[in-house]
Amino acid sequence: MPVWPKPQKQVLKDEYVGVLEPFLFKVSGKSCDILEDAILRYTEILKTNWRNLTKFDSVVTAPNIVGKTIKLKIRLLNECEKYPHIDMDEKYTLEIKNSSCLLTSQSIWGILRGLETFSQLPIPAPNGDQLIIRVQTIEDFPQFPHRGLLVDGSRHYLPIKAIKKQLDIMSYNKLNVLHWHLVDDQSFPYESKKFPSLSLKGAFGPDAIYTEKMIKNVIEYARLRGIRVIPEIDTPGHTDSMEPGMPQIHCHCPHRVEGKTFVGPLDPTKNVTLDFVRDLFTELGQRFPESYVHLGGDEVDFFCWEQNPEIKAFMSTRQWDGPQLQSYYMQYLLKAIKTIRKRSVVWEEVFQDWKNVNGDAQAMSMDKDTIVQVWRGGGLEGASAAVKRVVSAGYKVINSIGWYLDNLEQEFETYHGIRVGSIDLTPEEKKLFLGGEACMWGEKVDETNIESRVWPRACAAAEHLWSSPQPSNNTKNRITEHVCRLKRRNVQAAPVYDISYCSPVIPQPTRGSFSYGRFFSLDHIRESLGLTKDNEEDSHYETVTSSSDKAPTEESATETPNPTLIPSEKKAEKSSAPFHAGVNGILLFFSVAFLLKL
Amino acid sequence: MPVWPKPQKQVLKDEYVGVLEPFLFKVSGKSCDILEDAILRYTEILKTNWRNLTKFDSVVTAPNIVGKTIKLKIRLLNECEKYPHIDMDEKYTLEIKNSSCLLTSQSIWGILRGLETFSQLPIPAPNGDQLIIRVQTIEDFPQFPHRGLLVDGSRHYLPIKAIKKQLDIMSYNKLNVLHWHLVDDQSFPYESKKFPSLSLKGAFGPDAIYTEKMIKNVIEYARLRGIRVIPEIDTPGHTDSMEPGMPQIHCHCPHRVEGKTFVGPLDPTKNVTLDFVRDLFTELGQRFPESYVHLGGDEVDFFCWEQNPEIKAFMSTRQWDGPQLQSYYMQYLLKAIKTIRKRSVVWEEVFQDWKNVNGDAQAMSMDKDTIVQVWRGGGLEGASAAVKRVVSAGYKVINSIGWYLDNLEQEFETYHGIRVGSIDLTPEEKKLFLGGEACMWGEKVDETNIESRVWPRACAAAEHLWSSPQPSNNTKNRITEHVCRLKRRNVQAAPVYDISYCSPVIPQPTRGSFSYGRFFSLDHIRESLGLTKDNEEDSHYETVTSSSDKAPTEESATETPNPTLIPSEKKAEKSSAPFHAGVNGILLFFSVAFLLKL
Repeated sequence: MPVWPKPQKQVLKDEYVGVLEPFLFKVSGKSCDILEDAILRYTEILKTNWRNLTKFDSVVTAPNIVGKTIKLKIRLLNECEKYPHIDMDEKYTLEIKNSSCLLTSQSIWGILRGLETFSQLPIPAPNGDQLIIRVQTIEDFPQFPHRGLLVDGSRHYLPIKAIKKQLDIMSYNKLNVLHWHLVDDQSFPYESKKFPSLSLKGAFGPDAIYTEKMIKNVIEYARLRGIRVIPEIDTPGHTDSMEPGMPQIHCHCPHRVEGKTFVGPLDPTKNVTLDFVRDLFTELGQRFPESYVHLGGDEVDFFCWEQNPEIKAFMSTRQWDGPQLQSYYMQYLLKAIKTIRKRSVVWEEVFQDWKNVNGDAQAMSMDKDTIVQVWRGGGLEGASAAVKRVVSAGYKVINSIGWYLDNLEQEFETYHGIRVGSIDLTPEEKKLFLGGEACMWGEKVDETNIESRVWPRACAAAEHLWSSPQPSNNTKNRITEHVCRLKRRNVQAAPVYDISYCSPVIPQPTRGSFSYGRFFSLDHIRESLGLTKDNEEDSHYETVTSSSDKAPTEESATETPNPTLIPSEKKAEKSSAPFHAGVNGILLFFSVAFLLKL
Repeated sequence: MPVWPKPQKQVLKDEYVGVLEPFLFKVSGKSCDILEDAILRYTEILKTNWRNLTKFDSVVTAPNIVGKTIKLKIRLLNECEKYPHIDMDEKYTLEIKNSSCLLTSQSIWGILRGLETFSQLPIPAPNGDQLIIRVQTIEDFPQFPHRGLLVDGSRHYLPIKAIKKQLDIMSYNKLNVLHWHLVDDQSFPYESKKFPSLSLKGAFGPDAIYTEKMIKNVIEYARLRGIRVIPEIDTPGHTDSMEPGMPQIHCHCPHRVEGKTFVGPLDPTKNVTLDFVRDLFTELGQRFPESYVHLGGDEVDFFCWEQNPEIKAFMSTRQWDGPQLQSYYMQYLLKAIKTIRKRSVVWEEVFQDWKNVNGDAQAMSMDKDTIVQVWRGGGLEGASAAVKRVVSAGYKVINSIGWYLDNLEQEFETYHGIRVGSIDLTPEEKKLFLGGEACMWGEKVDETNIESRVWPRACAAAEHLWSSPQPSNNTKNRITEHVCRLKRRNVQAAPVYDISYCSPVIPQPTRGSFSYGRFFSLDHIRESLGLTKDNEEDSHYETVTSSSDKAPTEESATETPNPTLIPSEKKAEKSSAPFHAGVNGILLFFSVAFLLKL
């Protein structure tokens, strides 16, 4: 099966090995609790493969089976680190030989990524009686160290169970950062020990909170999957839900209705505010092992500050405007984070609006250790411009432009168009470009629909953050197969295209008047839908074959076969893409001509 | 709790009765299997209420509890009909008195609707120790007899389990027609006994078919819920998936690539085609007890017909154009359906494009017994125009304009704007306007996401087809509470608004440092979000109170209370809607000022 995200280097031979059951993961190097837990998980996933992959999923007619294996040898070369971190080593090598399989990595994190890759390789033999794996060598590593998914616990409360499910699915896509947007205007589910009134009065209800124990539970679950958990408490804007519990810290602004006020951003001119945020973030930093804390800093209502007489006076005295007051506040908070030996991520505006604060030499510019998360702009072009703007100023950056998942109409193809690996930067700038995040803001989702909204659309970001392959006709086949894989793993992954079908997961010898093998003669439909069997080689990849007695195109096709129906927009295709017949029956390595139009 | 869809007439007293557990449904009139099954279902739903409604859901502070009851007396006045039908009587009367509850209807179908209403009435007493129901009389009946949901089994195969779940949820919304779009270009899951090759070669796979037994299963499940099942096999367009199994019936048209052809609509000039559709629909009609069969007839590619030399010649001889050939075909099919004593529904184009067919007097106009389903156009204005067009020509009509659920960005409010009851028609025309359907086309949904895509957006259509209330500030509260009700019934109903919360379903005496009763002090958040406590009386309703010692506004509020947080778009509201304080604590009958803008 095609691996998602696409590995950096995959060298294929035209040979297969049988994978016998029961299958063993044999630790031949170092080990630790992370590895032990991973082996249990992937043993289960392999069992799922055995249970659910049938001959209908077979994509080879007469594989050259040269051996068999009952184990994957896992060689971890260094002791495990306890927690994943920004500099973790995720490189691994996976060798499938004719009598053995070997996974090697310097690091436990590389072993985790390699296990995921291994779990995606088995395919059923043509008669469905065994699983086979193609003989190959994979050398793989991520292009970007920060590959995240943002989930939002404030607009709608997201139960821990739903968050943990996201962590599972993230691991299937080699994502390694959970950005937990803990609170916002709408509710304050984060339970602070020092400021319990925040959630007591700001949470939606008694079952809509994140207690210290629940947070630990999430961190541990993520740790075992090599996923960092970066908490965000967004300030000084997006803090309305703090008001009931801490009524003294906000800027109140005149309402258009006379005599009324409304709650604006935090009031950074008051010591009570500064003391509060210092203590709140200190507790937050201590609760999360992760070295980064997300401080927010987006969409601050400067106008509200300017309408407030006390704040206005504070700014006037210093000849400051809104951006300067924001910079003053953020500078204070950045220093407070540094004091507790943590580092900061901030939203784009903190960088963009940063202005020197008169009379404070330390605040001449924002701390260079800060990561800026860009989100304003559209498409690959917008992402490129924003990334370039940040790195050329010497700051670290992660991209979320083009990856906002609350854009419901935006589909997989569009998300997959954000090829962050292709952004043109100098070698020095490239070092500052750390990765990106798909963002699932909570306005439109709760636990009922988050899974099908995030997946498979976030897989697009996951792939480009891992290896950023160039556009390819084959992506359609690969993501469609990956969706079927996710479904086999009990993920509510939504369909990508207007037509798709995952082969039957429960083999039944006969049903009614049917017998097996008479299905899958859908060539006519495919033809009428304008599907072709063309399969262009992804030549930019180092996907090579070591035997040359077959044409490369066929080899590559065999690498990324797919029995799944490929979608199309019927009307458009009908007259645009002929069906190239030939090649034999079940090997359907078609790609869709109109993909070229996208 | 507010009833969804809103009843036609609800007369409330300022008194409550306790509802004791175990609760009995006592049949005092006729009975049958449908009633017995319904009693089992609603007993379970009431149990769910008892289990999940806590004091947090209480919306009254000091209810005047004047009695208690342990049973609902069900008085069905006439023998049960076996199957629901277009003319079924759904009227019922529900009386909640201080010592008894009585549900009366002439018809089993009215009893089903009344049971649903009754199940929505209980609210918890302030201390949460019992459920109470307000003393009231409801006289209720649907405005339109045809209230449907279309599901599509072709673009993605929809398992029977998912279809049955939709039937459950339809019954919670008093929808009474499942329009089963069985097949389309993409796949042919319908298993025909006479033409088994259609699904053998046209289904996605062996587990993606609808066998006779499965169909019976769906029909029976629907029957017990008073829901008709109207099958659709769309012809002469949307038939590509028939081609593998029946290669001789289609019009093949020249492809833009020389020498290639593509599959167009059915070829109505061939006897083999006409015989085939006659036999296919005859079998279909026999398989479904429903008197209506949907013939499709949308989006036929006339250009393809004109490109085909034989068909072109056939038309030339008769001096016909594409619409005439379509009318010739549809006329044949309409007659064939009549022969098997069934009636037809067709898509809008069949009506719109109908042209007299030379030399056939019977085809001078389309049979007046046909129902036309309109779908082309936008908004209430588009729906009005299309409906008017059909009924003024003397044809029956159902509306789907504005109710296409595959429009992902379109939200509940927009769907609820299609107030079909307000369409201006003469009394004679009104008789021809039979109702409408929300349509969940399958391009973007399969079993992973259909539930959260359909619900609660289809509730909008359900309400306007039942009682078509005029726009009201209260709709936000009512739908938000209805979504929580659906969630309590295990429906994956997606959030309607940017912020919402259903009160805790599992009461826990204490958790961590919290104790109950300290939550729900979210007035500040509500204020900052621009929520008001105004609750305008829906004066167009016959929702009246029989005691006059309280202000009507408060009475009405008590009828539609809601502890659920009401959403808003923060930025927009902040400066637009002040918070009118006052009224006491937990009674939060706010509505959202910006609703007026919608």
